[in-house]
Amino acid sequence: MSCPRERTRRIQVGNLAIGGGAPVSVQTMANADPHDAVALLDQIREAADAGCDLVRLTVPDPEAAVVFGKVREASPLPLVADIHFDYRLALAALDAGADGLRINPGNIGGPDKVQAVVEAARKRNNVPIRIGVNGGSLEKEVLAKYGSATPEALVESAMRHVALLEAAEYHEIKISVKASDVPRTLAAYRLLSARTRYPLHLGVTEAGTFLPGTVRSCVALGALLLEGIGDTIRVSLTDRPVEEVRVGVELLRSVGLRAPGASVTSCPTCGRTQVDVVGMAKAVEARLDRFYRAHPDAPRPHVAVMGCVVNGPGEAKGADIAVAGGKGCYALFVKGVFVKTLPEHETLAEIERQVEEYEG
Amino acid sequence: MSCPRERTRRIQVGNLAIGGGAPVSVQTMANADPHDAVALLDQIREAADAGCDLVRLTVPDPEAAVVFGKVREASPLPLVADIHFDYRLALAALDAGADGLRINPGNIGGPDKVQAVVEAARKRNNVPIRIGVNGGSLEKEVLAKYGSATPEALVESAMRHVALLEAAEYHEIKISVKASDVPRTLAAYRLLSARTRYPLHLGVTEAGTFLPGTVRSCVALGALLLEGIGDTIRVSLTDRPVEEVRVGVELLRSVGLRAPGASVTSCPTCGRTQVDVVGMAKAVEARLDRFYRAHPDAPRPHVAVMGCVVNGPGEAKGADIAVAGGKGCYALFVKGVFVKTLPEHETLAEIERQVEEYEG
Repeated sequence: MSCPRERTRRIQVGNLAIGGGAPVSVQTMANADPHDAVALLDQIREAADAGCDLVRLTVPDPEAAVVFGKVREASPLPLVADIHFDYRLALAALDAGADGLRINPGNIGGPDKVQAVVEAARKRNNVPIRIGVNGGSLEKEVLAKYGSATPEALVESAMRHVALLEAAEYHEIKISVKASDVPRTLAAYRLLSARTRYPLHLGVTEAGTFLPGTVRSCVALGALLLEGIGDTIRVSLTDRPVEEVRVGVELLRSVGLRAPGASVTSCPTCGRTQVDVVGMAKAVEARLDRFYRAHPDAPRPHVAVMGCVVNGPGEAKGADIAVAGGKGCYALFVKGVFVKTLPEHETLAEIERQVEEYEG
Repeated sequence: MSCPRERTRRIQVGNLAIGGGAPVSVQTMANADPHDAVALLDQIREAADAGCDLVRLTVPDPEAAVVFGKVREASPLPLVADIHFDYRLALAALDAGADGLRINPGNIGGPDKVQAVVEAARKRNNVPIRIGVNGGSLEKEVLAKYGSATPEALVESAMRHVALLEAAEYHEIKISVKASDVPRTLAAYRLLSARTRYPLHLGVTEAGTFLPGTVRSCVALGALLLEGIGDTIRVSLTDRPVEEVRVGVELLRSVGLRAPGASVTSCPTCGRTQVDVVGMAKAVEARLDRFYRAHPDAPRPHVAVMGCVVNGPGEAKGADIAVAGGKGCYALFVKGVFVKTLPEHETLAEIERQVEEYEG
């Protein structure tokens, strides 16, 4: 499956296209000290290795803008500068080579400042601007009108910022309207998608620690992507940026919007299991991830690690390469055909060999 | 939000109601040795503590049926016996006090065996039977008709099993049609929901190791629950049963189908953060989970742990109890009103005190 996508305008963030039919991209935000170029680059490289397409860095002061420039020169991924309130920091980030800005034009002090930022962005090959609205930072008038951060309030706030950029004749825009729970997130993005053709950046804000954050983001972003809404995603977690990327990549894979990596399915083990399926599945996944990083263009057969004979042989026939556990051994199937029985300790190496030799 | 639910028939699995407007329940399957009552009970108790409503145990032989009976006597949760092929094991499990059976009547050797199981289930206060179809165990005729385990094939197989129970005039039925990927899972359950009013058990089969399994289950089950489909869920992971329960509980919470536990939101930390938000959020979650286990009826205010002043004070005002980080300290807000500034090391205890004293 590949979800039918809503048609959006395409923008270009460095070498990354967003919207207008481009593949849905995964982004994260570095959380290292914005004055520590080495630490920022470590996070960016780790994120890139995990499948990240775009990284955002906060630029809270002029020194951070200088660091941003240094990081930009060495970064394997395009970088977005996250700016709050001070338009001079936006100008400095653009000078430092930012591929995108995240700034809300209604918060930077008036039309002349907006004009200055837009002109600088335009000169640098139309650097896109993300308008990022969330429940915690709505304008007082909007909050007063709606009483709280309702989906309608989030969308109205976003469209006010959009109007300021459009008044300056700038259309290189991307929008997010993040709430902290699933229902408001769904409602806000559905409303927004019906109101605009600018590409949408999906996210749940303040999504919490790893487990609740992952669950909320997967439910909300998964449902929206399945409806065709969303051009780029961030899974916000109170955790390391690479964890956000891992979840985001798996999310896109699950809805058919990113090619599978090491596609390993395995069974929930039960009392019938006589081999270590958990250990085997994790080992296969790690081994194949390493293999695919070294050989990104290799074919990616679907691998199944099954614990027993009840579902094993049947599921094994649906996979390209599969093993089904017996007593201290595994039966190997390739394209649904039984090949041979393997002692447990030779199984991992044999699966890897089968993947390496697989020709699709 | 609470999703509008499809109307289904209600069944009773021990003291747990499923379907017909009952709360959506979370289940898991023990994976300890089915002959080790102590290990099984440990898993059941751990699952119950994490919010599980129902546990399934495999019963692969007559000795396991005896163990099942011992476990049943001590179990804090109702138990389903998972039976394959041998109807005598189903009878033994019913004798041992099973609250539910998972057995596919088409696989147990003919109408007289089906009749025997149904009569035994009927006598024991109408013990429900789950028909569990998955991609790996379809009948040859169904596979031949559809070519592969398509959503239509899964549903046809399930309805064949249903027809056998209905022929024996038994209607205490629950159905699952599990595929290993999101698109087939969605399509199969949507079809099934349109075809039947029996309650549905949702799951993705062989969902993989923790991360991909969690993501696939959250996307598929989340989308279905949001559509009103599903009466009980299992998140299948190649991991410990309690991990399946934790994800399942969070999934229900995220769509408003289970009351929040310790409802802690926190921000993804970024370069602006000057306090340890990750550590604080995790500590608050753990402390409040412990508190709520001891005081299940205490009010559950929404707690937010924010890293900085950009989104912090705004989001903090949306929470019942919130802290927003400064330099080595946190600002405390209760119901949106600033209360005081706390040194970082006193913050956890103060949040817990605020929760204990919270009156809604």
